Amino acid sequence: MQATYDRYRAAVDEALRAHPLLGGAWPDTTIAPQSPPPEGQIPQPLRSAMRYSLLLPGKRLRPVLLLAAYALCCDDMSPAMPYALALEMIHTYSLIHDDLPAMDDDDLRRGKPTNHRVYGENVAILAGDGLYSLALETMLAAALTAKQPARAVAAMEEIARRAGVTGMIAGQSLDVKLEGVAPDAPMVAYIHRHKTADLMTAPVVAGLLLAGASDVLLSAGKAYGQALGLAFQIVDDLMDVQGDAQTMGKHTGMDAQRGKLTWPAVYGAEASRVMAARCVAEAVDALAPFGEKADFLTELARDSLTRVS
Amino acid sequence: MQATYDRYRAAVDEALRAHPLLGGAWPDTTIAPQSPPPEGQIPQPLRSAMRYSLLLPGKRLRPVLLLAAYALCCDDMSPAMPYALALEMIHTYSLIHDDLPAMDDDDLRRGKPTNHRVYGENVAILAGDGLYSLALETMLAAALTAKQPARAVAAMEEIARRAGVTGMIAGQSLDVKLEGVAPDAPMVAYIHRHKTADLMTAPVVAGLLLAGASDVLLSAGKAYGQALGLAFQIVDDLMDVQGDAQTMGKHTGMDAQRGKLTWPAVYGAEASRVMAARCVAEAVDALAPFGEKADFLTELARDSLTRVS
Repeated sequence: MQATYDRYRAAVDEALRAHPLLGGAWPDTTIAPQSPPPEGQIPQPLRSAMRYSLLLPGKRLRPVLLLAAYALCCDDMSPAMPYALALEMIHTYSLIHDDLPAMDDDDLRRGKPTNHRVYGENVAILAGDGLYSLALETMLAAALTAKQPARAVAAMEEIARRAGVTGMIAGQSLDVKLEGVAPDAPMVAYIHRHKTADLMTAPVVAGLLLAGASDVLLSAGKAYGQALGLAFQIVDDLMDVQGDAQTMGKHTGMDAQRGKLTWPAVYGAEASRVMAARCVAEAVDALAPFGEKADFLTELARDSLTRVS
Repeated sequence: MQATYDRYRAAVDEALRAHPLLGGAWPDTTIAPQSPPPEGQIPQPLRSAMRYSLLLPGKRLRPVLLLAAYALCCDDMSPAMPYALALEMIHTYSLIHDDLPAMDDDDLRRGKPTNHRVYGENVAILAGDGLYSLALETMLAAALTAKQPARAVAAMEEIARRAGVTGMIAGQSLDVKLEGVAPDAPMVAYIHRHKTADLMTAPVVAGLLLAGASDVLLSAGKAYGQALGLAFQIVDDLMDVQGDAQTMGKHTGMDAQRGKLTWPAVYGAEASRVMAARCVAEAVDALAPFGEKADFLTELARDSLTRVS
């Protein structure tokens, strides 16, 4: 399982570094804009700010999910790669905006200073906007030459909707507004489902849509993504209570400090562990229609209970 | 010309108010989130914040451009409407983020308090993200049932690229970073071309792409949009020097106060007026391949020299 994961992750990292708008040596040697950039290139310091957060070593979980879901039906993963990169860009944009002073006001992410601490708040806002846009630009550039544009449209619609105002942004907006309120079971379920699980469901379903999977398989993939995403966020909540900054690459104990609505805050740590395990079991069960082909996704779900950062 | 403009604008306003995710009575009567919203709806206060900036009376210039460009080749404008709305959403998101304290720190827009002054900075950041996302979600939902998905993809790619990191966001990033630097002719041209003209070119070209226009017509539309956009931003710069807040619906004299790179700052007011007139003439000339059908777009360009806000 780890070898397969590492192979997917290495492919994602290689494709990120080869992206026509972001590629090249890192760190950048020129930061200050001296003259207008050539047309079709990203100006500095915006480009550096986008690369800084995107290219820091990460798990690349969402792109790996997309590639693995696509691989359930197709062999050559290259047609799916632009959509996989888009998921990582969307995830990174959401982290940059979440970390802003007006939001969670974090200064550490993936073990490094957050984007606004390095580039300033104005550039960080635009770097987030830019990565969100680049996600769409990257997918649409691929869709222009897609053999089946209707499949590309379906995959992009799935991704944009789950990252959007009834998905990830919806969850994030309540997460931010509800700091300091009393524990509320339906609300924490809503926030986790949208803030986190939607961006795990989108890659699985989009990968299957790109591969032309049947409705039965699409439903199975959706159920897997939703259960995995919920397990993942509950474990994340538990790690914020129990982890340390060294291992996590970000400050811990912050949820309680901010009065965030978390699973342990509502149900306690022990019941949260039980719930996470139940979600993983659900995720694994959902994969039944795929048979042995889904072994990697099965193990990935099981490992999420003991993951590090 | 004004009657045609008003007809387009009224159609855009009606479609905005009928949008499945944003429709309903305005202003909203409920603001505070009491319980999770129904699935598929935008939670409060995010929804109110998005509606606040989007539904304030505006010129709707970018959607009108898209509908008018589409009308050069097709009669029924309804297939183009989702893309027209997307342009207004993208324009509004860029204004919300531009007005943030970390950016231009404006407290007045379209004659009303800016989004973050009403809803707070955290909600305003997410309302901007949300409108950007909703633009894509709205186009992609339409593309799902498009008769010609390849045309939909081409139009979306045009819009996303010109709104993106080599387009509007690129221009905006230099506009923000270059406050207080010496006047620089190539840089101000770059900023105006991207910060403003790209989001006038995108609707014209996207409207034509949706209508299946020929390469010759696409080139003509692109030249029109670029020249119109540059004229528009030069006039905007001049109005910031000469206008008053009452007429403009925003504070004036701010560019000089911030040391912004503007056309008058580089060339002086008189030469700027000459340049704006030259751009309008170029825009009008570019429309030649369309013949009489382009009368509306011709008059729209001429009027831009004497526009109010």
